[in-house]
Amino acid sequence: MTIAVLGPKGTFSHEIAETVCDRDEEIIFFPTIREVFAAVTERSSEYPDLRGIVPVENSGAGGVFETLECLLKEDCTVRAEYYLPIRYVFAVAKGKSADMQTQALAKVYAHPQAHAQCSAFLAGLGNAAVVHTTSNAKSAEETLNDVSELTAALTTRSAAGIYGLEIIRENIQNYDTNTTRFLEIRRAAPEKPGVSGSSADSGDCCGCGTKCSIVVMPKGNYPGLLYRILSVFAGREINLTRIESRPSGDMMGKYVFFIDYEFGSELDVDGNKKLLDWLRTITEVKELGYYPEAKIGGV
Amino acid sequence: MTIAVLGPKGTFSHEIAETVCDRDEEIIFFPTIREVFAAVTERSSEYPDLRGIVPVENSGAGGVFETLECLLKEDCTVRAEYYLPIRYVFAVAKGKSADMQTQALAKVYAHPQAHAQCSAFLAGLGNAAVVHTTSNAKSAEETLNDVSELTAALTTRSAAGIYGLEIIRENIQNYDTNTTRFLEIRRAAPEKPGVSGSSADSGDCCGCGTKCSIVVMPKGNYPGLLYRILSVFAGREINLTRIESRPSGDMMGKYVFFIDYEFGSELDVDGNKKLLDWLRTITEVKELGYYPEAKIGGV
Repeated sequence: MTIAVLGPKGTFSHEIAETVCDRDEEIIFFPTIREVFAAVTERSSEYPDLRGIVPVENSGAGGVFETLECLLKEDCTVRAEYYLPIRYVFAVAKGKSADMQTQALAKVYAHPQAHAQCSAFLAGLGNAAVVHTTSNAKSAEETLNDVSELTAALTTRSAAGIYGLEIIRENIQNYDTNTTRFLEIRRAAPEKPGVSGSSADSGDCCGCGTKCSIVVMPKGNYPGLLYRILSVFAGREINLTRIESRPSGDMMGKYVFFIDYEFGSELDVDGNKKLLDWLRTITEVKELGYYPEAKIGGV
Repeated sequence: MTIAVLGPKGTFSHEIAETVCDRDEEIIFFPTIREVFAAVTERSSEYPDLRGIVPVENSGAGGVFETLECLLKEDCTVRAEYYLPIRYVFAVAKGKSADMQTQALAKVYAHPQAHAQCSAFLAGLGNAAVVHTTSNAKSAEETLNDVSELTAALTTRSAAGIYGLEIIRENIQNYDTNTTRFLEIRRAAPEKPGVSGSSADSGDCCGCGTKCSIVVMPKGNYPGLLYRILSVFAGREINLTRIESRPSGDMMGKYVFFIDYEFGSELDVDGNKKLLDWLRTITEVKELGYYPEAKIGGV
């Protein structure tokens, strides 16, 4: 198989792919999350056996908009989840660390998410201008290239290594518990696993997980609607591990809900079918996938 | 009074401030939303009579992370809401529009939110590289300055005017219903309005609105928790106009909920107090403010 992730080399997506890939499995990079989805769902002749790994939520910054949008629109299946502890480093070009004692820092290159997740450290840096970039790897690259004044990057340990930067401080994120959850996506099988009860899909983990991801799209808007949706889960004592509301896109005040829930030790296929059938009487439901629950901190 | 907004000139925040400001009211600009909050909450000697206007959610892209984070942490009160229809234009430097017929477009400058909100238009542009910027005004400025090749900006009509760009296409956003909701924030009064029933605060709209914004911070995590929270509203037939889950920041899987709800024609001060008292038996509650409901499309 091949793994598709957000590039360039040195992103957190790259890091998690290296952790989970099989020996001989190639990792390929795409410039946006949308293109990772497109490679998985639409380019089957080019990439017949491709899995994508995409970030879906961060413990500090919340849901990743682009991923949620693609999950809503694209025809793919979630097949696994992974957690990656997120650690940022503060780094300068090689040979510049001595200048930190004598010169004022002019610029810090940072991805907006890195900025948000390291805001306390950044606030302690004084008057250096924060310049936003498109990826953590890009922050490292800009710092390497911008030698006209003293500049630094908030970046990943891996990207600092790739671009030959010198690490000045490690673990500069606001919370040591900072974690990002990734999903593994594959092309959707014609038959939805888990619901039909069949495990006829080609993959290795369909129907056997205990965690379920769905998107609920309400048909109307009235007092108590979300309450009715949640009653289905509460009445069965099913634990929601996550609920995230997102705008439906077409109208202010109209939302869809991304819901993850879990069965205890085994997916109750019949119970799940009944639950979804009931939900479908008041909302539209898109099943995103059924997969084993991962432990936070492990992969 | 003075109005503080996200700058530079030409942002959507600038546009809404111009629409709602009183005659002679000065508009001042800050480089980040965080600094707008800081000016309102902490710099009372410099700005004794300041109101801030900040974007809180967009109908396509969802909640504005920085605003939600500040609402959670800063000591301020929401005093009004405004809706602004969001329209993007596609613009080039003056005199360059003729080149569009003969030359390939090399780059499009766009804020990530503008990119997301105009993704269908962008996809139709072919192979031009999209370069992300820190604001819509900045996209216009970069396009003006980068004359080495054919470049364009996704920007606002106002920013195109300020930077002297030529507008090639208007209304390039994915949805014509694209709308951003803004909140007006002021320094919190010592006594919380609306709950105590007093209107002793210095402002002009406290206690008289019918819309309420709160943040609910669950004390535990168990099946049915959110369901119990929502039961308080459903049992009273109170309409939630918005619920947005955000990570609490310190731990994966722990969330806080931003909830907006409304009373019919008049704030039921006693009923609201009972509702909040009940909620406080199972969660922490931060009251963000009580204010009149605005109509979408009007301000």
